[in-house]
Amino acid sequence: MRRVSYGTVGIVGLGLIGASIGLRLRGVGAAKRVIGFDVSPSARADAVRMGAVDASYETLNHLGDADILVLAVPPDALIPCLIEADVFCKVNSIVTDTSSVKGYVLEWLKTYPLRFGPRFVGGHPMAGNEGRGAADAKADLFEGRSWVLTPTQATDKSAYEAVHSLVLTLGAKPLTLTPEEHDRHAAILSHLPHAIAAILAQMGANLVHPEVAGASWNDLTRVAGSNPDLWANIFTTNRHEVASALEDFEFMLSELKKAVDAEQHQTLLEFFQAAARAKTAWRN
Amino acid sequence: MRRVSYGTVGIVGLGLIGASIGLRLRGVGAAKRVIGFDVSPSARADAVRMGAVDASYETLNHLGDADILVLAVPPDALIPCLIEADVFCKVNSIVTDTSSVKGYVLEWLKTYPLRFGPRFVGGHPMAGNEGRGAADAKADLFEGRSWVLTPTQATDKSAYEAVHSLVLTLGAKPLTLTPEEHDRHAAILSHLPHAIAAILAQMGANLVHPEVAGASWNDLTRVAGSNPDLWANIFTTNRHEVASALEDFEFMLSELKKAVDAEQHQTLLEFFQAAARAKTAWRN
Repeated sequence: MRRVSYGTVGIVGLGLIGASIGLRLRGVGAAKRVIGFDVSPSARADAVRMGAVDASYETLNHLGDADILVLAVPPDALIPCLIEADVFCKVNSIVTDTSSVKGYVLEWLKTYPLRFGPRFVGGHPMAGNEGRGAADAKADLFEGRSWVLTPTQATDKSAYEAVHSLVLTLGAKPLTLTPEEHDRHAAILSHLPHAIAAILAQMGANLVHPEVAGASWNDLTRVAGSNPDLWANIFTTNRHEVASALEDFEFMLSELKKAVDAEQHQTLLEFFQAAARAKTAWRN
Repeated sequence: MRRVSYGTVGIVGLGLIGASIGLRLRGVGAAKRVIGFDVSPSARADAVRMGAVDASYETLNHLGDADILVLAVPPDALIPCLIEADVFCKVNSIVTDTSSVKGYVLEWLKTYPLRFGPRFVGGHPMAGNEGRGAADAKADLFEGRSWVLTPTQATDKSAYEAVHSLVLTLGAKPLTLTPEEHDRHAAILSHLPHAIAAILAQMGANLVHPEVAGASWNDLTRVAGSNPDLWANIFTTNRHEVASALEDFEFMLSELKKAVDAEQHQTLLEFFQAAARAKTAWRN
């Protein structure tokens, strides 16, 4: 763990992600001061009580002197938040976010003249998307997890380095991708699994004997209870990549169904063999 | 835990399930003697070494004096195994199995005059289908898990009661269903999740940055490495119910894709809300 002083860190959005960031930074003494904003009075109170921030505020402008500003808000709140932050933040503030979809923000940034535009570094920690609040926050939430960063041609090198260093301080493993690469990977590795879990949970709802379920059912439906608002936003903002992942999945499902209908035992065997090989290779 | 003496219990197939049954029965002293058969010399040796059986044999006929015979073999081996067991087993032997699909066996039984036909009670423990061997067996594998029993009109009441009692001794919760109910529930709650995990694992295999995967990916692909032979057999023997589950899933997936393509935020929100409600109801 690196100990670096980041001066004042401002956290916008004191949910699970925002409060966990604050807890870690204060826990390791990496920032001179951690201040936070949230629209919810209870989130602000939770964050202060658990020590995630030195102080919390009910309007964004109080975070104006932050050297680094972390926007830990849902995808649909991010653009309004960037616009508002741009008004009050000081010259040379570095800004990053934690939102699950990156492409649409970077596209928008190309057209909108934010003062801190070159000092905005998109980010996405691959941890905790269950939409729970500050009460579940913990300093080691990001330990060992990947944290994608999506700098572009327009991104200031020193801003990228500062955010990269912040991610290391949080215990995560930084991974630099283009926004497009991020969104395609996230669609397959995270958004598609959430869609599947959501469908399965609904299919199971009407069964008379749910106790027939074993471990595989519990595995596959675990994330079905995630925050609906957040996930509707993710599916809207990343709709092209999500649609493409759904389409690829649909194709493989229809091929499998054909093999089942036609009783093609050998095809089924090869299908499960390919899956087992993929799973083994993944683990290694 | 009930302690009942079952006389001699014969276990056909000393894999994860068969060996775990033996370990439990011998551990609680519920049987006078536990004897086993497996075609694999190493499975026989493992079972003896770990104490899952008092003795193991390389031909089935040595299990002829078992009072209860448990057929813990894959779905495609079950019918040949029933036919062979019928030849050597003593009058009044009670026979049960642990196979993941029930309907096709019971259909076949209607047409095939097994001596022990009325004393055959279909069973399926909802535990451990990863196709691992005796080496992973444990006495508490079934603790608290459901164990479906599928007696029919033709089933002897005392045979059913003996198998029901055996299941309780193994620590499981017996659940009595018709073979059709079992197969429909298993198709949705177990077979469909395995198909989905297998598709996802294959979709992930070609990604350049697998480290973007988070907890949801690991949850949804956990069972993708299951035994391909076993799962090809399950999908063949339960093909009507599996096809129907795949079709229902396909329909919901295509509805979701329509909503994504058409940017119907409200429909997406309702979809994830319905999933979250189903998941909450399931937990309670």
